[in-house]
Amino acid sequence: MARVRERMGALGVDVLLLSVGADLPWLTGYEAMPLERLTMLVVPLQGDVALVVPRLEAPRVEAQGDLFEVVAWDETDDPISVVSARVGRAGNVAIGDQTWARFVLDLQRAAPAAAFRKASEVTGPLRVVKDAAEIDALRAAAHAVDAIATEMRRRPFVGRTEAQVHQELVERILDAGHQRANFAIVATGPNGASPHHEPAGRVIEPGDVVLCDFGGTMDHYCSDITRMFVVGDPEPEVADAYAVLVDAQERAVRAATVGVTCESVDAAARDVITDAGYGDRFIHRTGHGIGVEAHEDPYVVAGNDLPLQPGHAFSIEPGIYLPGRFGLRLEDIVVATAAGPERLNEAPRDLAVVE
Amino acid sequence: MARVRERMGALGVDVLLLSVGADLPWLTGYEAMPLERLTMLVVPLQGDVALVVPRLEAPRVEAQGDLFEVVAWDETDDPISVVSARVGRAGNVAIGDQTWARFVLDLQRAAPAAAFRKASEVTGPLRVVKDAAEIDALRAAAHAVDAIATEMRRRPFVGRTEAQVHQELVERILDAGHQRANFAIVATGPNGASPHHEPAGRVIEPGDVVLCDFGGTMDHYCSDITRMFVVGDPEPEVADAYAVLVDAQERAVRAATVGVTCESVDAAARDVITDAGYGDRFIHRTGHGIGVEAHEDPYVVAGNDLPLQPGHAFSIEPGIYLPGRFGLRLEDIVVATAAGPERLNEAPRDLAVVE
Repeated sequence: MARVRERMGALGVDVLLLSVGADLPWLTGYEAMPLERLTMLVVPLQGDVALVVPRLEAPRVEAQGDLFEVVAWDETDDPISVVSARVGRAGNVAIGDQTWARFVLDLQRAAPAAAFRKASEVTGPLRVVKDAAEIDALRAAAHAVDAIATEMRRRPFVGRTEAQVHQELVERILDAGHQRANFAIVATGPNGASPHHEPAGRVIEPGDVVLCDFGGTMDHYCSDITRMFVVGDPEPEVADAYAVLVDAQERAVRAATVGVTCESVDAAARDVITDAGYGDRFIHRTGHGIGVEAHEDPYVVAGNDLPLQPGHAFSIEPGIYLPGRFGLRLEDIVVATAAGPERLNEAPRDLAVVE
Repeated sequence: MARVRERMGALGVDVLLLSVGADLPWLTGYEAMPLERLTMLVVPLQGDVALVVPRLEAPRVEAQGDLFEVVAWDETDDPISVVSARVGRAGNVAIGDQTWARFVLDLQRAAPAAAFRKASEVTGPLRVVKDAAEIDALRAAAHAVDAIATEMRRRPFVGRTEAQVHQELVERILDAGHQRANFAIVATGPNGASPHHEPAGRVIEPGDVVLCDFGGTMDHYCSDITRMFVVGDPEPEVADAYAVLVDAQERAVRAATVGVTCESVDAAARDVITDAGYGDRFIHRTGHGIGVEAHEDPYVVAGNDLPLQPGHAFSIEPGIYLPGRFGLRLEDIVVATAAGPERLNEAPRDLAVVE
């Protein structure tokens, strides 16, 4: 909180307002429910911090008297009035990036003289560098999904639908100690060419290439891994493209040393794929930061000239997508350290031949 | 889409912008991923509708050439520019209620002359009245959770943690045909007094009262049910309070006829609980609308003088919460029809005695 207020002062922010999204649990341990009843932490530059919550959720809030007071509003109260009374005549308001538009618009109307900006301008630079405890939490979450990825190599795939494998992954993510499964993409055969394919009724057939990209939230920190499976021996082009992908991923991981820019790491993967003739089939960035959110700064993408610092944590996940045929992606979470890049994921990276 | 545009015209809205939240799938069948990469449907009052999506998600969009064109942006593009170019010099912009603040603020900066309002002003009155197909979908989802509630009456509870029962509910919600589990509150013993308790490590003991409130999304429409369990015969005060609750819920359901205001339905439940001496322990509204969102209009709450219309669908869920001891809630989904209120849930409503 002290570091947040220090940064508010440096940026000229008078009040910080946090609602749904990761900033609130990162700062207080409390997560707002994504509901029509407003929950909002009001952090003035100086003075008392208030967590404005619906009365019926107040019992969920653990007393943190040293951090904030709890201000409960009743079902017939207007929570916008409660918050705006605390905002007062503040000229510069920073509001949580994922706050619902309806609350932003209502608060702007209630404080027409205030200029609103994103809370990430305050919190982003503080959140992007992970300390040792945060990296331990990311490592524990990574190892939990590593175990799932390894177990899946021994599971049957043929005859099952994408939705069935999806559900197995969701259940395994929870069984492995995550409090929440954030996503479990299962993209088979030609569906693999859609990077964010929604698992559905397609039945897995012999010869299919299967992409599994899954993760969850464990003790506030996220996991995220992608591993590839093939039913029976892969066709030569699949094997060849996968070898290119493994090389690209390895090069990008090795490139991710302190001081190197994010866009250079992206280029390290992209160059390998381009040289192999698949440049136009790698249709997304190489990676994203990870922490209390599954996607956060730093983004490993062309145009991002941010140099890596010790404690930056991010995915390295190049892909090759051939429409109508198959898609390939390989993803690990990596931390930049003074001693070089450290992969948190340890599950085998070869193309797993399954039944 | 024609009805949406008609209402835009009536309200003087020049452009409607929809991102995450339920309006977009309600209007197009496509659901935006809640990610930092912007997805936004741009609906001008007249002319072409565009779905602005990240390039890597474009393959997920089913072609709907009659409804919208797909405008894909690349990883190094600025999606705010793509949207604001289409907004042009529009003076009145309606933006989806759950759109992330960061996109609202960026779009406001890109179109400083425009006045922004909530998209629900356009879509709310259209969404609140469900047609026969929508009610069938709500009924199917209700019956799916009815079956789970009924099965839980035969399950053992003692010795299991809240988190374990929570996970069982999540898995059953998915097994029962929902694509998504939205929540599964398991609040045992004194934790039941927190209406939105987060299931955790508490182990269920003999004598415990157990509140299970769960639901998901099935074919775009939501389920939501609360049933009560007790381990062994209930203490007299639990049985007495539960009898009051059943009566209160029944009275509110019967009160929910066409033309009656939402606040009158709330009062019907509240009066019974107040007369029994628990008025100050019923700390939330009686219910919420339900449809493509788990919580939407109409809200069954004091101060809402909206008269019920045929096709309004909502929960009736009074509760009694005794801090440090136990909590009780009973919830069904009800539809207002010309022939009177229809409960969609049919699972037994008595206090289930379990082991």
